Amino acid sequence: MPREEHPLHRLFYPGSVAIIGASRSPRKFGHVQVANLLRMGFGGRIYPVNPRADEILGLRCYPSVLDVPGHVDVAVITIPAPKVPSAVEECAEKGVRFVVVISSGFGEAGPEGRKLQEAMLKAVEGTDTRIVGPNTTGILNPEARFTTTFMPIYGPVREGPVSFVVQTGLFAGVLLLQIITAERFGIAKVAGLGNKCDLSEAEVLEYLGQDERTGVIAMYLEGVKNGRELMRVAREVARDKPIIVLKSGRTEAGLKAALSHTGSMVGRDEVFEAACKQCGMIRARDFEELLDLAKAFAMQPVPKGPRLGIASYSGAGCVLASDECSLQGLELAELSRESLEKLASAAPPWARPGHPIDLEPLHETMGPDAYGFALEILASDPGVDAIMANIMALPREMENVPFYAGPEDFLRYFSAAREAAPHKPVVACVGGDKAALEELVEVLEEAGFPTYPSIRRAIRALSALYAYSAIRERLAGPS
Amino acid sequence: MPREEHPLHRLFYPGSVAIIGASRSPRKFGHVQVANLLRMGFGGRIYPVNPRADEILGLRCYPSVLDVPGHVDVAVITIPAPKVPSAVEECAEKGVRFVVVISSGFGEAGPEGRKLQEAMLKAVEGTDTRIVGPNTTGILNPEARFTTTFMPIYGPVREGPVSFVVQTGLFAGVLLLQIITAERFGIAKVAGLGNKCDLSEAEVLEYLGQDERTGVIAMYLEGVKNGRELMRVAREVARDKPIIVLKSGRTEAGLKAALSHTGSMVGRDEVFEAACKQCGMIRARDFEELLDLAKAFAMQPVPKGPRLGIASYSGAGCVLASDECSLQGLELAELSRESLEKLASAAPPWARPGHPIDLEPLHETMGPDAYGFALEILASDPGVDAIMANIMALPREMENVPFYAGPEDFLRYFSAAREAAPHKPVVACVGGDKAALEELVEVLEEAGFPTYPSIRRAIRALSALYAYSAIRERLAGPS
Repeated sequence: MPREEHPLHRLFYPGSVAIIGASRSPRKFGHVQVANLLRMGFGGRIYPVNPRADEILGLRCYPSVLDVPGHVDVAVITIPAPKVPSAVEECAEKGVRFVVVISSGFGEAGPEGRKLQEAMLKAVEGTDTRIVGPNTTGILNPEARFTTTFMPIYGPVREGPVSFVVQTGLFAGVLLLQIITAERFGIAKVAGLGNKCDLSEAEVLEYLGQDERTGVIAMYLEGVKNGRELMRVAREVARDKPIIVLKSGRTEAGLKAALSHTGSMVGRDEVFEAACKQCGMIRARDFEELLDLAKAFAMQPVPKGPRLGIASYSGAGCVLASDECSLQGLELAELSRESLEKLASAAPPWARPGHPIDLEPLHETMGPDAYGFALEILASDPGVDAIMANIMALPREMENVPFYAGPEDFLRYFSAAREAAPHKPVVACVGGDKAALEELVEVLEEAGFPTYPSIRRAIRALSALYAYSAIRERLAGPS
Repeated sequence: MPREEHPLHRLFYPGSVAIIGASRSPRKFGHVQVANLLRMGFGGRIYPVNPRADEILGLRCYPSVLDVPGHVDVAVITIPAPKVPSAVEECAEKGVRFVVVISSGFGEAGPEGRKLQEAMLKAVEGTDTRIVGPNTTGILNPEARFTTTFMPIYGPVREGPVSFVVQTGLFAGVLLLQIITAERFGIAKVAGLGNKCDLSEAEVLEYLGQDERTGVIAMYLEGVKNGRELMRVAREVARDKPIIVLKSGRTEAGLKAALSHTGSMVGRDEVFEAACKQCGMIRARDFEELLDLAKAFAMQPVPKGPRLGIASYSGAGCVLASDECSLQGLELAELSRESLEKLASAAPPWARPGHPIDLEPLHETMGPDAYGFALEILASDPGVDAIMANIMALPREMENVPFYAGPEDFLRYFSAAREAAPHKPVVACVGGDKAALEELVEVLEEAGFPTYPSIRRAIRALSALYAYSAIRERLAGPS
């Protein structure tokens, strides 16, 4: 079925958008939303709706969505909660396909709010209008230059394979800002679902499963709307695309907080954990880990097996990496006799070459090329499925130091390893001088090599890649 | 006993240093070591030792340490391992107090290396000469402008309360570079102990326990030289100063790697874990966490109890923080009726004020001052022992956004909270625009408020502070 026909297609690729609550005041969300669409260069029609304005940011303003001349694919609502149900009713009457309700004060806000949420649902009953939210920032699709978020977006949003489904405004609010300004993986789609009174995470997941632009799906959930449906869809989608889930409300305290945040009724965490295992979702502990894993999946292939090859500029790194390898469910690779002989012939006489590869002795004999030498051995050894290199970023003033390697050197070493073994994922743990570090991270990640500031996090990323390769194999088998 | 008299004092505050293996070639460690002392402005005498040079970096060079005219407190050795024992013998003959052996190729490098290590030990037998290392980077003491490291140090090293005892060259090699260029807590002392053939971590720990400059001790250990002694000293030191320990060699794979790195024989991890509990050492999982915790201890007081107060700009942050609070052994504070009433009167009618404090509704009514308002409530509420604020860094272009707060605003809010409750630790989780984030982190941390990029890590830091307050109480009691 061609992408155009999916029922959610117009939510992400609308031809026309109405902003209900559009404002002339730059401090208002309804202003920022219009401004974002203009700045991003949204190609569809934009209809500001506000009965007390004629024009907003040069666009003609309409008193009600019913006055808008053409068809409306998506209406974005930011007016106060008590006024939302009637605005939604007008949208349904107008035949709007999707209403994204940004406003808060619904299911998460006690009995009064719950009544408003029910009224809003009633307004679309029996119609084709779907509600996204309420209590969210809604949609971002950089490809269509479309967003409903109330956080100003200034710079360009990098396109890439990572899609997010999040039950919060936090995400598009701040984390998105962070991703746009700091991360080098690109974004395919973002769907903020808030209270999920109508559109569910399972429906969006199903859409992303068939979205050609989406290669990795990262989710933040507080509650689950329909567990069985989510599991069914997840199991289907996970055959092709990794799904990483950060689920909060894991503890009693978290459950209580979730109830007042998005009005979520959250089940026991053990149940969710078991469901994840069964349908192949990979859990992350926090947003930091969610992004760590998304980055790895966005940039690297999944390994064929659990055997980890390690090279580290320091022996302590070898020990820590060996520990993490075991703690995170991977196996320390056993190098072939040939690899060990190569290492032995290159090392100084006092060293005992082995695996993990301690680069310190090799730096003594080979200088910085020891990095490339070790990576080449790990890439070509058939006993290695995945590679973690622990490397150091030194300032250019140190280029006299015998083991100094600059970003361009590392790029050469890493690229050669990828060329020798394109099927083996390669990640780096990077440490050192702050400015040199930033440069090194940029060079490596622009070339598709994810970097992490800790060995634990680098190996966690590889362990997730391996977990997914096992999941994919299992889900592809006879069920 | 005055500091001057401690047996290890001269190792950190030497009046004279010999660099055995000093070199005219800028690529050699023995060159960098001399250059570092000159650049740092070391006030004592520096004696380069090299039989094939007359002068190095403008300093007169001596053929042997025995030719040095004055007394030598510390000799630093970087010559190849086979030549080290005789050099150490000369040091002992000269009456050198401490020999810091940087060279590798000893206990960690098989039978030949072990013989060399034994020969080296034999050379000091019955003398007052102590050996640090081998296989390490040795000492850094910014107060004395003294270091033995072979990594070039260019900028100034910030002085502060954190001391490190590490069994690796990794540390002074790279992590130190990172701390110097990226961290805002200062350093008191660093002792890299390498293979610990003579000087042990327990001896250094005991020294740091009485060192006035040291307020926090962070350790990286592979093996433990004398477990009983370490426990005895740790229990003593932990009464006054927190000890954070990263211990590798936790798994079979790690044990094997540790053996070939520093020749450490490592015991079972459960034993070490139990020892930590008993003598009040706090364990870190990786270097990232070691630094996270060191920063918290360096900047904040320990809380009187486990009751955590939370304010977050987003409801998702409230849920995640509630989870982490439980998962990490803290308790979610119950706010007083007075606090809840204050919150209720400030919140919009649709919101349900409670704890954790969701700032989103308060931002609606109070703008950015909601941050200050919430911090004030948490600071003044007697049911709160520690405070975590989840805040966002927005670019200055967004100052029109109703909830925009700049670094100077946050500094004002945080400082007011500290003034109202100086005994409550306050940490921040920060997220947002990359450039704005860097500015915010700098402003807050320069003022002594530690920041973390994840709620999990921020709460982990507070949980360690609380753990230490409990440890201190226990160790002070009748034993």
